[in-house]
Amino acid sequence: MPPPKLEAALLHAVFPGGARVRPRLLLAVTRAVGGQDGPLAYAAAAAVELLHCASLAHDDLPCFDDADLRRGRPTVHALFGEAMAVLVGDGLLVLASEVLARALEGRPDVGVRPLTLLAAAAGVHGGLVAGQAWELEDEVDLGAYHRAKTAALFEASAALGAAVAGADPVPFGELGRALGMTYQLADDVCDRIGAVEELGKRPGRDAELGRPTGARGDLALVQSRLRTAMRRTISAVPPCPGHAELRAVVGDVLALLAARCRVEEVR
Amino acid sequence: MPPPKLEAALLHAVFPGGARVRPRLLLAVTRAVGGQDGPLAYAAAAAVELLHCASLAHDDLPCFDDADLRRGRPTVHALFGEAMAVLVGDGLLVLASEVLARALEGRPDVGVRPLTLLAAAAGVHGGLVAGQAWELEDEVDLGAYHRAKTAALFEASAALGAAVAGADPVPFGELGRALGMTYQLADDVCDRIGAVEELGKRPGRDAELGRPTGARGDLALVQSRLRTAMRRTISAVPPCPGHAELRAVVGDVLALLAARCRVEEVR
Repeated sequence: MPPPKLEAALLHAVFPGGARVRPRLLLAVTRAVGGQDGPLAYAAAAAVELLHCASLAHDDLPCFDDADLRRGRPTVHALFGEAMAVLVGDGLLVLASEVLARALEGRPDVGVRPLTLLAAAAGVHGGLVAGQAWELEDEVDLGAYHRAKTAALFEASAALGAAVAGADPVPFGELGRALGMTYQLADDVCDRIGAVEELGKRPGRDAELGRPTGARGDLALVQSRLRTAMRRTISAVPPCPGHAELRAVVGDVLALLAARCRVEEVR
Repeated sequence: MPPPKLEAALLHAVFPGGARVRPRLLLAVTRAVGGQDGPLAYAAAAAVELLHCASLAHDDLPCFDDADLRRGRPTVHALFGEAMAVLVGDGLLVLASEVLARALEGRPDVGVRPLTLLAAAAGVHGGLVAGQAWELEDEVDLGAYHRAKTAALFEASAALGAAVAGADPVPFGELGRALGMTYQLADDVCDRIGAVEELGKRPGRDAELGRPTGARGDLALVQSRLRTAMRRTISAVPPCPGHAELRAVVGDVLALLAARCRVEEVR
C-alpha cells in the first residue's frame, strides 16, 4: 500500500476524470482493427490516462502554470501541497509503465513495443516532458511544442490501440497525431473564449503566462483553421474493419471540441 | 533532441556521477551468475542509475530538502530553476524505463520482467516515490521508510543483474535489500558526523528537517549496529559461480561506508 496521504492524493488526481479522451481513442482503435478490448487493452488505456494525469499534476504546480482549479476542483498542489503534487506526478508516471508492463508479462506474443511507445509519448525527446520544457525555452517552435505537449500522447494512444491488437501502429499513430494537434488548437481557442464552468479550469491562463498559442489573431480565421484541422483529422482515419465505428468515435470528440469552440461540427 | 535547456539540465543531473554504486552492483551480479555484461545489462545498469538521479533531482527541490549542493556542485534547481528540476526528474524517470524497454526489444527471450522490477523500485507501493512520500506523513515506520527510499532500488539493481542473465532474481534481490538498508544507515551516520568535502552535500540536513533517521542516540551504539548490518550484508551474498568476486565488490562498497562512518572494515 502507498503511504496514506500519497494514496489520497493519487486518487484525487485520477478520479473523477475528465472526458478520458485518450483511453477512449485507444480502445476504439483496438476494436476497429478487430482486436479484443481485454486486459491488455484496458491496461494500455489506463496507462495513457495515468500519464495524462501525471502531466496535469506537474503542469498545475506553482513553478509552472500555478493553477488552482482543474476539472472543476482544487488542483493536487492546492489541496495536498507542492511536495505531494510532485510525488503524485512521479508516482503516476511510474504507475503508467508499471500497469502496462504487468499486463505484458502475460502476453509474450506482444513483446515490449507498447512500453517503448508509451515512454516515447512521455519522454524528453518529443513527449510530454519535452513539451513542458519548451515552455522554459526563449525561442519556441509552436508546432514542435504542440506535437510534444499534446499530440505525442494522442499518437501513442491510437498507436497502442493497434499494437496491443497486433496491428500496424503507424497509420493509427498518424490519426492520433492529427487528432492531438486539433485538440491542442481547440484547447487554445477555449483558453481564449471559454468559460470556467464549461472548462473546469480558468481560461486566459495561456495569455497571462505568455505561452505560445495557436489561437492568436483574428478569431474567425482561427476558427476556420480549426475546422480545416478537424476535416484533416476525420480523413486520417485509416482503412480498417471497423472504419465507420472509429470514424464515429473521432467525430464525437471533434463535435465536443466544435461545441466548445463555437464552430460548426465536422463529420 | 530534447529542448536545449532541458538537455543541459539532464546532463548536469547525470554527469559527473557519484560512486555509481547501484549500476556497479547490477553488473557485478550479472557477472557473478555467469551472464554477459552486454547491451542489456548495460541498459539495466543505466536505468537504475537514471532512476537514482531522478530521485535526487526531486529530493533536492525547495519543497523537499531544499538542498543547494550535491556531488560537490550546485543542485539542478539551484542552477536551472525549480520548474526545470521538476522536468529533469520526470525526464530521467521516463528515460530509465525507455532505455531498458528499448534494450529488451532485441531480447524477446528475457520478457518484460526487468521492467516490472524497475517500476516496483520506483513506484508508489514501496519504491522511491513511496519513500519520499513517507517524509510527508505524520507517523512513519522507519523500516518501511528506508526500505522504500533506499533499499528498494538496491534490491532491484541486484535482482535485475540476475534477471537480465536469466538467473533467479530473488536471492540477489535479498542481498541488494540488505546492502541498501546498510547503505541508508551509513548515510544517516554520515549526515551526523560527515564533512561537506567528503560527502559533496551538506551534512546535518536530516536533523534540520526532522527526518526519521537510524543514527539517533549513542554514536558508538549506532556504529556497532552498522557493523552488524555490514556483516549481515556480506553473508547475504548468495551461492553462485562468481561468489568470491561478488563478495569482493560488496566488500568494497562496505569498506567505503566504513571509512566514512569511522568504523572498522568488515570483509
